[in-house]
Amino acid sequence: MYADSVKDKPHRLVASDRVEGSRLLNADGKKIGHIKRLMIDKLSGNVAYAVVCFGGFLGIGEEYFPLPWSSMRYNPSVEAYELMTLMSDEELAKAPSYAANKDFDWGNRIREVDAYWIGF
Amino acid sequence: MYADSVKDKPHRLVASDRVEGSRLLNADGKKIGHIKRLMIDKLSGNVAYAVVCFGGFLGIGEEYFPLPWSSMRYNPSVEAYELMTLMSDEELAKAPSYAANKDFDWGNRIREVDAYWIGF
Repeated sequence: MYADSVKDKPHRLVASDRVEGSRLLNADGKKIGHIKRLMIDKLSGNVAYAVVCFGGFLGIGEEYFPLPWSSMRYNPSVEAYELMTLMSDEELAKAPSYAANKDFDWGNRIREVDAYWIGF
Repeated sequence: MYADSVKDKPHRLVASDRVEGSRLLNADGKKIGHIKRLMIDKLSGNVAYAVVCFGGFLGIGEEYFPLPWSSMRYNPSVEAYELMTLMSDEELAKAPSYAANKDFDWGNRIREVDAYWIGF
């Protein structure tokens, strides 16, 4: 880690390789997993999704969950990202996911992701 | 590398850890360096800057150059990013930069970066 830190400097920028590896917490502060990578919209330049690793959590092994970037926010007091809305373990387990050793079919499954997360 | 590839699937998303390490070419196709990381605006969720490593190029050692994301575009035919506008070696060498083993003062130097690159 280097020092392009949220708390060290008064700017609005965060490095992509700093977000990668950051913890994702539920809205109650319990750890869900960590952010594996970000998915960037090539046309708009917006971060559209975070791919979150729920490794070990819920006993479902190494699974990746695509989450809309708008479903989480950074909480500087705990130096982690957190869900905007509290999700139960069951709701988390049912979210669209894929095995860590497979590719995700972004082209066809993106609507499923949006439908699942937007509304909570 | 995994297969969330630009050419493999009909979607607009690219993974952050795929952009990291991608080549940056000048507008004439000559390699300038590679993208080290992206800087994301925490409020808007937009990719605002790419930090480019010009290692070896121009004989100036390992230097990092922050470039506005809007100054480059992805060229799928060569699987690399390229500058929108041709820059001379001298112009590239004079761009705001910092040593790879130092931190960049984003808070104070961001206007310098914008002033240098926006206008070309």
